[in-house]
Amino acid sequence: MNEKNSKDVKSNEIAQGFDHLREEIDDIDKALVKLIFQRLKVTKEIGEIKSDLGLALYHPEREAELIKNKRSYAKELGLSPDLIEDVIRRIIRDSYKSQNAQRVASLETESKEVLIIGGQGQFGKLFGDLFKKNGDKISIIEKQDRLDSEETLTKIKKADLVLISVPINVTLSVIAEVAKMLKLYNPNCLLADVTSIKNQPVQKMLSQHQGAVVGLHPMFGPDIETFAKQTVAVCHGRLKANYQWLLDLLSKKGINLVDVESKTHDDLMSIIQVLRHLSTVAYGNHLRHEDIDLNKILALSSPIYRLELIMVGRLFAQDPVLYSDIIFSDKHNIKMIKRFINRISETLSFVEKDDKQSFIQSFNETKEWFGEFADKFAKESNHLIAKAGDGGGVL
Amino acid sequence: MNEKNSKDVKSNEIAQGFDHLREEIDDIDKALVKLIFQRLKVTKEIGEIKSDLGLALYHPEREAELIKNKRSYAKELGLSPDLIEDVIRRIIRDSYKSQNAQRVASLETESKEVLIIGGQGQFGKLFGDLFKKNGDKISIIEKQDRLDSEETLTKIKKADLVLISVPINVTLSVIAEVAKMLKLYNPNCLLADVTSIKNQPVQKMLSQHQGAVVGLHPMFGPDIETFAKQTVAVCHGRLKANYQWLLDLLSKKGINLVDVESKTHDDLMSIIQVLRHLSTVAYGNHLRHEDIDLNKILALSSPIYRLELIMVGRLFAQDPVLYSDIIFSDKHNIKMIKRFINRISETLSFVEKDDKQSFIQSFNETKEWFGEFADKFAKESNHLIAKAGDGGGVL
Repeated sequence: MNEKNSKDVKSNEIAQGFDHLREEIDDIDKALVKLIFQRLKVTKEIGEIKSDLGLALYHPEREAELIKNKRSYAKELGLSPDLIEDVIRRIIRDSYKSQNAQRVASLETESKEVLIIGGQGQFGKLFGDLFKKNGDKISIIEKQDRLDSEETLTKIKKADLVLISVPINVTLSVIAEVAKMLKLYNPNCLLADVTSIKNQPVQKMLSQHQGAVVGLHPMFGPDIETFAKQTVAVCHGRLKANYQWLLDLLSKKGINLVDVESKTHDDLMSIIQVLRHLSTVAYGNHLRHEDIDLNKILALSSPIYRLELIMVGRLFAQDPVLYSDIIFSDKHNIKMIKRFINRISETLSFVEKDDKQSFIQSFNETKEWFGEFADKFAKESNHLIAKAGDGGGVL
Repeated sequence: MNEKNSKDVKSNEIAQGFDHLREEIDDIDKALVKLIFQRLKVTKEIGEIKSDLGLALYHPEREAELIKNKRSYAKELGLSPDLIEDVIRRIIRDSYKSQNAQRVASLETESKEVLIIGGQGQFGKLFGDLFKKNGDKISIIEKQDRLDSEETLTKIKKADLVLISVPINVTLSVIAEVAKMLKLYNPNCLLADVTSIKNQPVQKMLSQHQGAVVGLHPMFGPDIETFAKQTVAVCHGRLKANYQWLLDLLSKKGINLVDVESKTHDDLMSIIQVLRHLSTVAYGNHLRHEDIDLNKILALSSPIYRLELIMVGRLFAQDPVLYSDIIFSDKHNIKMIKRFINRISETLSFVEKDDKQSFIQSFNETKEWFGEFADKFAKESNHLIAKAGDGGGVL
């Protein structure tokens, strides 16, 4: 047997072992799927018990403890703790999703009469559903309803909570109209809104209504899979004791409540929502005008740029009216955005003047301003970028 | 027993069942960790066999098939196929990482003499390591080395491949110097570079060197965990047959090679790298000047904005010199960036004029331009945003 033949035989033997190992992988994966199935069955049971006991679905300490234990167990075996944490968190996300579909019973609290103005809208429906699962009674008023009709008056009179969930550009006028009716028929009712700006609506509710007032801003879209770990900004208005039950209900669903003064809220939102959305829209418009070949650019994109491009493109799958409502809602954002445009021009002027030194100095000042967040963000983004690079998915 | 007491007893019984279910979860999670451990042991063995046989580590069809099968198995059980796909992909990512640490033996091809100019740089080291694991012999030249010294001449004379991996702003002059030496001592050597712009370097290599030429641009940072699924842009130069072995080696490591004409490459990079980096730097500078409270903004961020903020902040954890080199590399980007600035001003002018109609029309034209990508991006980003919202992590 010459050397070549002996090599062939050896290769063949190895290739057989190879097939065998692949079968092993398939078996392990099947076992994995079965275990995950079992786990979701158990968490569903837990969710049902929590509902029966009126307990919060999301239990941050228990989750943190569970992850911590599995990380150390992974370390013992010489496995990457990050891998195990990622896998378990991914499975937990689906448990919240299925638990969310269940009713949150409140054994102790009496059920409430909730009137949702704009109850047919996406957010109106989302919150209506939340109250219904809590055992509360829901009624709704839509824009075609006359506020002074017999039917509407009945709804207003019996309401414990009137929740305003209407487009941002009519929020103030709707608050005024509703408050007028409440003054006549239900002055001590709790009045709340879920508009994405808060200062004017909260001021309006406080000045027009004498009862309890709270402004809420759900920091998520209406298409969320679960309330667990979502954030709602809370701008306190008046008579907190009268709306504590509402905050408790949101907490029970796993929502993270963040108290914020309404003016501060709006300043931050002008950055989070207005500037970011407007510059992303402009970036998309720019790509169109430059007529970039999207297929080519995707083929050449690193996971980071792919992620950035996805974040631009995703916006154009949404409703432009929603974005224009937010962007056009507050004209004093214009000055801030002009300052942003000047900032890009300044940065570009360093390039025009071939002034690397100023570019780097300005970069370093911002690096310092970000402080420890820069490194934290880099670390966190590496996980997400790696995921974006896992491939498969829809592209 | 009154009603209250009977309720208490019932609650107590339920709570005990509850503890029991939590223990079950812990057991399942332990079993999951063990299975993942076993799986990684098997894939490591497969990696070793692949190395012995000189096979590619990344096998896209096998991976797709495996995912497809587990998706349908999940469906049979009534589980979310996306959940199973995410979990298995996450585990696979770690297998590539451990396989990557292994040597890729090439049973058939002879080992090469590779000279890396800038071999001490981050990319120089990364590629040096890749060649070493392939059984090739590496030598390096650094900027302090004299090109005409005895030692350097020996390296140049025996090289099969000279790979230029130096900062972008000295690439052209280094190509000229190296080509001068090759002309005298090794005119038929393969000459390649890994600079992030391609037109000028490839033209320079072609005009100064008579042997085989290829321009490469690794679309990833030097800190990647694995080459699998990374992209390298390939700008073909001359005598492809003489560098096919190099492309084959990259493919074997799981790298996705994308052929692109050098001029097209640079146009796309002006969008991917220059515009994106510059506007992100400007955005960070803007946040600093507005003196936003990062803690407050994070507390209020939806997962989407959190992701966007992370993508801005991460950049400032990097080296400003690297970014300035890229941004300052090509002055004809300035005009394109000015067009971008005008595009933001135009979008903002709609707001100033309260012209929602034009804003929406322009939005819809861009939506149409994105075509099916808008929805695809929205779908893909939902996964990533959900992951960003899973919490834990480093923040």
